[in-house]
Amino acid sequence: MTAAPRTCPHPDLRIDGRRLMARLDELAAVAPIDGGGVCRLALTDDDRAGRDLVVTWMGDLGLEVTVDGIGNIVGTRPGVVDGPPVMCGSHIDTVRTGGRYDGNLGVLAGLEVIETLAAADITTHHPLAVGVFTNEEGSRFAPDMMGSLVYVGGMAVETALDTVGIDDVVVGDALDAIGYRGTAPVPAPAPRAFVELHIEQGPVLEADGITVGAVTGVQGISWTEITVEGQSNHAGTTPMALRHDAGYVAADIATFVRRLALDLGPPMVGTVGAIDLHPDLVNVVAARALLTVDLRHTDDEVLQKAEAELAAHVAAVAEAEGVGVGTRSLARFEPVTFDPDVVDLVAATAERLGHTVERLPSGAGHDAQMLARVCPTAMIFTPSRDGISHNPAEHTDPAHLEAGANVLLQALLTLSAAP
Amino acid sequence: MTAAPRTCPHPDLRIDGRRLMARLDELAAVAPIDGGGVCRLALTDDDRAGRDLVVTWMGDLGLEVTVDGIGNIVGTRPGVVDGPPVMCGSHIDTVRTGGRYDGNLGVLAGLEVIETLAAADITTHHPLAVGVFTNEEGSRFAPDMMGSLVYVGGMAVETALDTVGIDDVVVGDALDAIGYRGTAPVPAPAPRAFVELHIEQGPVLEADGITVGAVTGVQGISWTEITVEGQSNHAGTTPMALRHDAGYVAADIATFVRRLALDLGPPMVGTVGAIDLHPDLVNVVAARALLTVDLRHTDDEVLQKAEAELAAHVAAVAEAEGVGVGTRSLARFEPVTFDPDVVDLVAATAERLGHTVERLPSGAGHDAQMLARVCPTAMIFTPSRDGISHNPAEHTDPAHLEAGANVLLQALLTLSAAP
Repeated sequence: MTAAPRTCPHPDLRIDGRRLMARLDELAAVAPIDGGGVCRLALTDDDRAGRDLVVTWMGDLGLEVTVDGIGNIVGTRPGVVDGPPVMCGSHIDTVRTGGRYDGNLGVLAGLEVIETLAAADITTHHPLAVGVFTNEEGSRFAPDMMGSLVYVGGMAVETALDTVGIDDVVVGDALDAIGYRGTAPVPAPAPRAFVELHIEQGPVLEADGITVGAVTGVQGISWTEITVEGQSNHAGTTPMALRHDAGYVAADIATFVRRLALDLGPPMVGTVGAIDLHPDLVNVVAARALLTVDLRHTDDEVLQKAEAELAAHVAAVAEAEGVGVGTRSLARFEPVTFDPDVVDLVAATAERLGHTVERLPSGAGHDAQMLARVCPTAMIFTPSRDGISHNPAEHTDPAHLEAGANVLLQALLTLSAAP
Repeated sequence: MTAAPRTCPHPDLRIDGRRLMARLDELAAVAPIDGGGVCRLALTDDDRAGRDLVVTWMGDLGLEVTVDGIGNIVGTRPGVVDGPPVMCGSHIDTVRTGGRYDGNLGVLAGLEVIETLAAADITTHHPLAVGVFTNEEGSRFAPDMMGSLVYVGGMAVETALDTVGIDDVVVGDALDAIGYRGTAPVPAPAPRAFVELHIEQGPVLEADGITVGAVTGVQGISWTEITVEGQSNHAGTTPMALRHDAGYVAADIATFVRRLALDLGPPMVGTVGAIDLHPDLVNVVAARALLTVDLRHTDDEVLQKAEAELAAHVAAVAEAEGVGVGTRSLARFEPVTFDPDVVDLVAATAERLGHTVERLPSGAGHDAQMLARVCPTAMIFTPSRDGISHNPAEHTDPAHLEAGANVLLQALLTLSAAP
């Protein structure tokens, strides 16, 4: 990407914000749920309905539509030359209580970019493509980001097809049932570059009063389940010195996680979201506790340091309290660093368009982190009201959606220009 | 009690340990449960069977048996003079998963004292009485210690009789059903003194290698339920500084309670036995938390100080984290201080009999704390293996049971001597 063009051949071109909103509204009307949200779990009939709508739009826009062996849909617009396309896209599957922007924005903004170019009769030097990746959410089939993982060769398609869902349905059967097991090969040829527009799903941009986020990478994730085995005792008759209090140890670990995150500083985050005590009674010292620790950082060295400090603290407090502890890794993903040139391009483009910009890592996983394995990649974030996502109340100001889509347009134009 | 006699008229008299164990075994065979425990919830048919057995024994021992309006049973042995008796006793109702010694020991050791005196043809100067108090456990009808509370005039008998149980049965009806609504008046005349032998139900004596506890009083109890209202957020996308984490606040309060108890020192105890988070998921910052705080101390001033420091800390951490908190008192009992002379008598008697002695407060409630309102009162504790009680595994070494019963015998002989 050091040779990437730095100027946009059509710097004044803009997308049509109302047309983008209309598509977002129309797709949100497929399997709507109370409160303005949607529920299109991956590879369900509702997902098929959403896919069919997007494929219809792709056809209307004259894109060449392919579907691969894991159901990823790619619509490609030819360039002046052949070869790998500059790609954008995201996903249209949702969680059970999904919002209308998560994923959908990246796909429909891509279509809006295509329609804007078509309306202006512009042919880019390199082809452009819009990808719709299968099962990004992972709500029905684990792991999440399955389609993009298979797309880049990170998981064998056969393995993905054999995955059993929470409803005991197998991915391959579900793909066949909705007619989206295609013939395009996976792994796919690497795109020339990849840019994903997505809502932030967090509160940072809104809190800082920023319109556009230039996403620098995706945090590494470490999930640990900790079980504590203490001794059930009478809360009145057992002196403090004679206790083996599993509840206290759980609480101590939770407060340590907070201190750890603050000590290591942003972008470190640490969360104890689940604590379960047994017997969970007011007058009984807890015999057992189960808690989870979620640690995330963009730098794997720091994340490993956090994990080591957590492990040392857990061992120390367990010994001091005289309780047994067991730990089990629930998930571990290394951080992803996006391409600095594409991140710079996103930031510079947003500034050129007059928007406030902040560079920030993503705390959530996205298809872009898979594409980053095979091509220069970055993401564009737009603010999420109150940081809310995976919730029907998910909302982004239409002006912010339009701003993000224009940054996507201009960045794609720049990336797809000659040579 | 400053004029209480300090010498025992029969210093070498001893109870029969095997006879005591035989009665404990026979009563434990009424409504036994797996693991060697018993289940005789108050005023059930099982409780009636236990009462009938004890009343039969009282009759065999020639005691004058009365039953009062709340079902308390008192067996009295005449003294040289009339007047208020020196009293011992406890309860024979149990929790659902009861052990065989909790309560039963105090009643049956009283009968063993009576039988020992009868066998030695000794008539005490003042009468002796053994009380069996109704519904000490409170497992079926609240409050616990109901019978002794009514006995001393702390609750109107009409109020107690109207109490509805967890099975929707009313106390008065249950008393009638088992034939134990008696005619002896309540409140009853105050005894001359009261001594209750009971298992410790805690680990202190065993841990210290002590045979007899001279119980100095009963801890005051303060139970508080705390609800925390934070904000549900994505554990990955929400920076630490923007969180309103109800789970963290709950954990912080739990660790504060531990520090508070340690700072205030023994006999302060503080327990957070229950913590419930919502939604209780690994990757979601908890929106809500509910936790309970159990604080106990023998000095009400210290207990009030602990309550005030807890309230101040809860307010401070809630403000710092930007969460709402609500607190609700679940229970509040003032500490009870036993009569120093009777406590001294118990300690001196145990030492004279060659036992190791430790003065300690009771962390649990007992009928003796109600009797302490109307007469000089103390308790004798015997060790509980592993501190376990309210459990079929409840166990006290037979030698310790015998030691406790001998201290009871000698203390009652001293208290019931002339004048």
